[in-house]
This record gives sequence, structure tokens and C-alpha cells, in this order.
Amino acid sequence: MAVASELSPALISKLTASKAASISLATLTTSQKNGALLAIADAIDASVPEILVANAHDLEAGTANGLTVGLLDRLTFDATRLANLSEAVRDLVKLTDPVGQVVHGMDMPNGVHLAQVRVPFGVIGAIYEARPNVTVDIAALALKSGNAVVLRGGSAAENSNRILVDIIQGALVATGLPAEAVQTIDELGREGARQLMAARGYVDVLIPRGSASLINTVVLESKVPVIETGAGVVHIVLDESANLEWAIDIVHNSKVQRPSVCNALETILVLESAAQRLLPFVLEKLVTSGVTIHGDERTREIFSRAVAVTEEDWGTEHMSLDVSVRVVASLEEAIEHIRTYSTHHTESIITNDVGNAEMFLAQVDSAVVMVNASTRFTDGGEFGFGAEVGISTQKLHARGPMGLAELTSTKWLVRGSGQIRG
Amino acid sequence: MAVASELSPALISKLTASKAASISLATLTTSQKNGALLAIADAIDASVPEILVANAHDLEAGTANGLTVGLLDRLTFDATRLANLSEAVRDLVKLTDPVGQVVHGMDMPNGVHLAQVRVPFGVIGAIYEARPNVTVDIAALALKSGNAVVLRGGSAAENSNRILVDIIQGALVATGLPAEAVQTIDELGREGARQLMAARGYVDVLIPRGSASLINTVVLESKVPVIETGAGVVHIVLDESANLEWAIDIVHNSKVQRPSVCNALETILVLESAAQRLLPFVLEKLVTSGVTIHGDERTREIFSRAVAVTEEDWGTEHMSLDVSVRVVASLEEAIEHIRTYSTHHTESIITNDVGNAEMFLAQVDSAVVMVNASTRFTDGGEFGFGAEVGISTQKLHARGPMGLAELTSTKWLVRGSGQIRG
Repeated sequence: MAVASELSPALISKLTASKAASISLATLTTSQKNGALLAIADAIDASVPEILVANAHDLEAGTANGLTVGLLDRLTFDATRLANLSEAVRDLVKLTDPVGQVVHGMDMPNGVHLAQVRVPFGVIGAIYEARPNVTVDIAALALKSGNAVVLRGGSAAENSNRILVDIIQGALVATGLPAEAVQTIDELGREGARQLMAARGYVDVLIPRGSASLINTVVLESKVPVIETGAGVVHIVLDESANLEWAIDIVHNSKVQRPSVCNALETILVLESAAQRLLPFVLEKLVTSGVTIHGDERTREIFSRAVAVTEEDWGTEHMSLDVSVRVVASLEEAIEHIRTYSTHHTESIITNDVGNAEMFLAQVDSAVVMVNASTRFTDGGEFGFGAEVGISTQKLHARGPMGLAELTSTKWLVRGSGQIRG
Repeated sequence: MAVASELSPALISKLTASKAASISLATLTTSQKNGALLAIADAIDASVPEILVANAHDLEAGTANGLTVGLLDRLTFDATRLANLSEAVRDLVKLTDPVGQVVHGMDMPNGVHLAQVRVPFGVIGAIYEARPNVTVDIAALALKSGNAVVLRGGSAAENSNRILVDIIQGALVATGLPAEAVQTIDELGREGARQLMAARGYVDVLIPRGSASLINTVVLESKVPVIETGAGVVHIVLDESANLEWAIDIVHNSKVQRPSVCNALETILVLESAAQRLLPFVLEKLVTSGVTIHGDERTREIFSRAVAVTEEDWGTEHMSLDVSVRVVASLEEAIEHIRTYSTHHTESIITNDVGNAEMFLAQVDSAVVMVNASTRFTDGGEFGFGAEVGISTQKLHARGPMGLAELTSTKWLVRGSGQIRG
């Protein structure tokens, strides 16, 4: 099953070491994993000056290479960000270890005991862009869930990633764990990423993190199974019976609280029977927070400060203070719009009509479907998972916010006393 | 995300109809789905002569094309096989409908209610070889789990598949369901199968069924997520402390009861400290049932009727009355052998040593790991699932025997009363 012919000896050597490390990791106790996490957090705290020096090299190169302000910001460490990073690692210690949890258990009629238990995947591959915090984040999540991890970060963060992996490996060895539990293949460049996607049999699952285009490439090219964390073209429907206050507050919160994240609102669909009653207030509140309204013709008739929406807007994840607005004839038309343009992340309806609420919940095919709640609640932390691995927009394995359990597989343990099949 | 440029208009038209049908199917009640299943079973019973005529055309062509006896047997329908097929469809009526089951549910501290519920995938693609019973089997499983299905069967079964799909569609329409819930693309030939693998965005999951080479091709080439049901190179370890009677009976049952299936035993690994005590009796019992023993040197010293095992044997799923036997120095060496040659389907150890049993359960990375039980128990029916979709040897989504629940995804339903994120 492995496509070994496409893999360089350097990569095979690293991946073989990852697999060997994963075998040790799979049988560690929670205490051993927690000890390693605390050692990693302490080591980051103790190495702040060195990390900042490495990061400064990346920032210097990034500036010279003309990275945008946004990308440079994502690349930047400072003392506060590093403190938050080590604190996030410590937070994982408190979380329940998913490994060993019994998902199902029953006895067969002949007395054979069956238990389906959570086990680590084995080796997780991570492909991401110039956000060096992801290096620590993914390594810590993988470790807590008993997985070895092979990291391919963006070349723009190469120096930051290298020192972080060195620090993590030092902490692993100091606590008796194999250094190869966390490895980087950044030195293999783009070709390394391409080969990682072909490393079926060596890598059990691949997690891409970053832009839609990065994720799309990995999803389409990888021969290793992928957990897809996708973009959010998120919709809110304002039903005829929508409570005005809820509509104003939920739309505002969904759009404005943190516009750059995937659960932020992109499109409002309002029933025409409620447009005149709701839109002036809902949109006014948005405008006071600096939101640009991209409206269809009827929206602009009702709210003259709206600019004309384009066909492209409907499918765009703005990640900015922009919102698209359409007046629809019916709830069916709203659902049809969502079917056409949604990325199946999160959609919410504001309604007081029980039938319409249930219809929306049943017919909208998204990872999270809401009634009368802010789309910003689609979040591992809000859902009580403690840590968030990402928000899956695929249908296989995991859908919606993912916690540590989503970094595990299962296996069936069967305990008999000589039984054979009749 | 869809790779639409690679898809023919004929396929896009069919897949669009499948998606539309899947939207209706997702909200059917269990009674409606059961009604359609009963209608399908009745329609098969009422059409036995026509099905046998179509099947005879396939058999005639298959004979002319030189199909092997085994392939012709798989292709063959008779009155008994058709009766079993319709009965298997009726059996699905009794099973619990997975759609709507709440997997997790909790309230957020602010009073928002969360429920993770099972929902159909949407459109399932099935690629399989010349076994026309799979056409009915997959269609019925998909229907019960609320999914539309697009079938690509082997060309050798084209006539049988066509009449079965006609019969199924007739029964669907007669019970008020969309005919497009079950479609075949056999008329598009091999190119249809290739395009189906590229139909990301149209098809939610692809299930290949058949030979290892078919499954391998689909797994490596598909851009649609795949549920892999793999081959079984299944091992039994005879530990130093193994009970002789259990070793004899479990090995015999695992190898001989049905050698052509994936949970049948392929390799015995015996601890050298127990080889002299166990092998003569264990192998004698096999030989009396016609099994050919492929032994390593030490096995042949103990049991002279063994032929020499080859390196290739260790990795082969014989599916016949052949078994490979190796004497190992330690349990660690046995586990290392399994790591090298297993397809991660099922492995069992016969032991009375608690420590060794737990070590085996913890360290062997297979879908099903057993102690003192026959490997033949790895089966959806034996596990109490009622129906079996297949046995997954992948780690994502489903691992081990799959029931109806494994043909579903989940979504989160969030019910609030105006809550926004603080």
C-alpha cells in the first residue's frame, strides 16, 4: 500500500523512526504523557530569548521577501504569545486522555467479551503554513493523544520551527520519551510535503492547516487519508417570525466579534416578509461597527448604504468586516441558496416557528446547524472539548469541532476462553 | 472542490440526480424506508425468472470470455441464492435505523443545547466486481441508512445488475421514493469508474468491494474519501502457556471453517518453548482437514509433512486450505512478525499468561485483536450488528466490522434562545 518508490531515503528514514516512536507512544500512561507536556511547556518558557532570535531571522527574511502585514503578524512571536503557547500546552495536561476509552462494549452470546477502545492513529502528518505556533500546538495535541507527528511547516517559519522542534525533542528525551515522537521535515522543502502526501503505509493520517488553497491541494493530491478542516462560508437566515433583538444581536456577534475566523458570518438571508421589519435595524447595528453591507437589489432598496453584491461574494469567505445580504421569497429558497454556496461549516436560523426550526435543522447539510444562536459557538472550546484540533467540514471520521478523541482511531479487543465459531 | 472538468455530462447528470434524491432520503421516516425495502424484496421474489434469464446472458458471455470457475460461481444466481438475497433485504427492516440517533448531547453553560446526531452521508459510490448480489446488498444498506447510491459493478455482471437496478427502482417509485436513490453507471464502462473516483463534491464516500487490487487502485486514485475494506493476512500466536485443546480447536476453526473469507487464518506463530508440545497436534488436526502446511525449518523438523514456506507466503492471503507456520523465539518476535506482514485485520493469541495477553492486546495494531478466540468472530453478524457493510482495515472513520452506523456521518444540532458569544 505504501508508495515507497516515490519516497526519498531521507524521508523513509524519518518516517520509519516516527513509526517506531509511535509504537512506544501508544502504550504510555497518561502520567508519562502529561510529564512530557509539562517539560515541553517549561522548556519553551526557559528558551524565550533563543526562540525570539530565531523568529527574528524568519521575520527579517519575510520582510525582505515582501510578506504581507497579515502574514508577518502570524509569523511573529513575542513574550506574551510564547507565554500563551506554553500555557496552552499546560492546559492539555488537565484534559482527559482519549486513549483507552471504551467506546462500545458487549458480550457475545457465547461469552466472548468485546470492547471497542480508542487507540492512537500512530503517525500523524501535519502540513501547514507560516504559523510557528502550530508547530507546538499540533505536537502537543499529538503527544497527548499518543501519536507521533511529522511536521511540515511553511518555509517562512523555518528557523522558528527548527528551534521549537529542538526544544520539544529535548523535553521528550529528558522525560524518557523518544525524540522521534516529534519530527520536522522542513529541510526537505516542498518536495518533502509532496512526498509526505504519498507516504501511505508510513503516515496514518494527514492534517493540513492553513489557507483554503493549501487544504484543497492536500485533499486532492494526498494518498494518505486526510482530516479536512475547511473554510466557512457561514449563513444566517432571518425567518419571518424572527425575534428582532435576537436577530440584531446574533448577526452582530456572528459577524463582528472576530471576523477573521472560520465560524464568522458571511451571508444573511432574510425572508421577504420580514425584510422591512428586520433589515434596517440588523444592518444599522453592523454598520456602526464598520461592516460593509453587500446587498442584492431589494436589500439596497431597504438599506441604501449597502453596496451591490456580486455573484462571487456569495461563495467568498471574506474574513473581514464585509457581509452579503439577500432577500429570499421562502425558507426553501434560503435553504437552496445555502446548498449552492455553503462550505457546510455552520448555518443558523433566527426564528420563533417550531416547524421552520425543525425543517432547517433537518434539511441543512452542514457540520453545525443552529437555531437562535450565534455561529461563533462552533468551536471546540465552546463545545467543552478543552482543546481544538480544528473544525472538520468533511463527513468521514469527524465533523464539526474536533477534540482529542478525533485524533484517535479505535480497535476491538476480544477476550475469549477457547470459543470457536459454530 | 469538485473536479468537474474531469466528469462527463452524462455522469454529472446522474450524480446531480443522486444528490437531489439524497436530500429526500435524508428526511424519510424509518417506516418509509422499511416499506421500500419490503417492496424491493417482494419485487425480487416476483422477478426470479427474468433475473435468471439476464444472469444466464452474463454467464454465457463469461464462459465465452474464459472466466475462471470461481468467478463464474460468484456471478451465478439460482432460485436459492435469489431467495437468500431478498431475505437479507427483509432482515434489514428489523434493524435499528441509525439516522437520528444522538451520539453525544450536552448543554453549554449559557443554556444552549448541543446534540450530535447521526445523518446519512448523502451519496455513496460503490465500485465492485462481478458479484451481482452486491448490487442489491449495497442498495439496501444505503437505503436503510438514508443514502443515495451510485453503483459501478463489474462488466461481467452487466445484464444481472441492470435488471436488478430496474427492479429496485420500480419498487422505490411504487413506494413513493425517488428512482434516482439507486442508480447504476455500468453503461459508462471503465471510464465511469475512473470518473466516479474524481467526483469529489458529488459523491460523499466511495466503497470499493472486491479483490485487493481493486481496493488498492481505488484507495490510491480516488479523490473522493474511501472506506477501505481490506484483505486479511490473519495471524494466530501460540504462546508458551497456550492450552493445547484451545490451540487445536481455535486454529482449526480459524483456518478450516471458511478458508475463502478475510477473517480466515493465514499464519501460525508458535513460541519455540511450546512448539514441540503444540505443533504436532495442532498441525495434525489441520492436515486431516486437507490443509497444506507451509513451515519454516524448525516447523519442518517437528512436523515432517510440512512443505517449505517462502518469503512470499508470509504476506499472502491464500483464501485456500494453506497455512504458514513459523517458530519464534519470543512474543516480541511474534509481534514484530505481525507488524511486518499483517494487513491489520485480525490477530489472536492463545495463552494462559495474563501479562502476555495484555501485551498482545496493547501492542498489536490491528482492527481486531483477540485472546483465546477464533479469528472467524471478526464479523458484523457475530458482533451483533445485524448487517455487515464490510470489515474496515483503515483507521479513519471506521475500523473492524462495519454496521449501518458506519454508513452515516454526524451533524451537530444547536438550539439556543438568543445566546451570543461573550
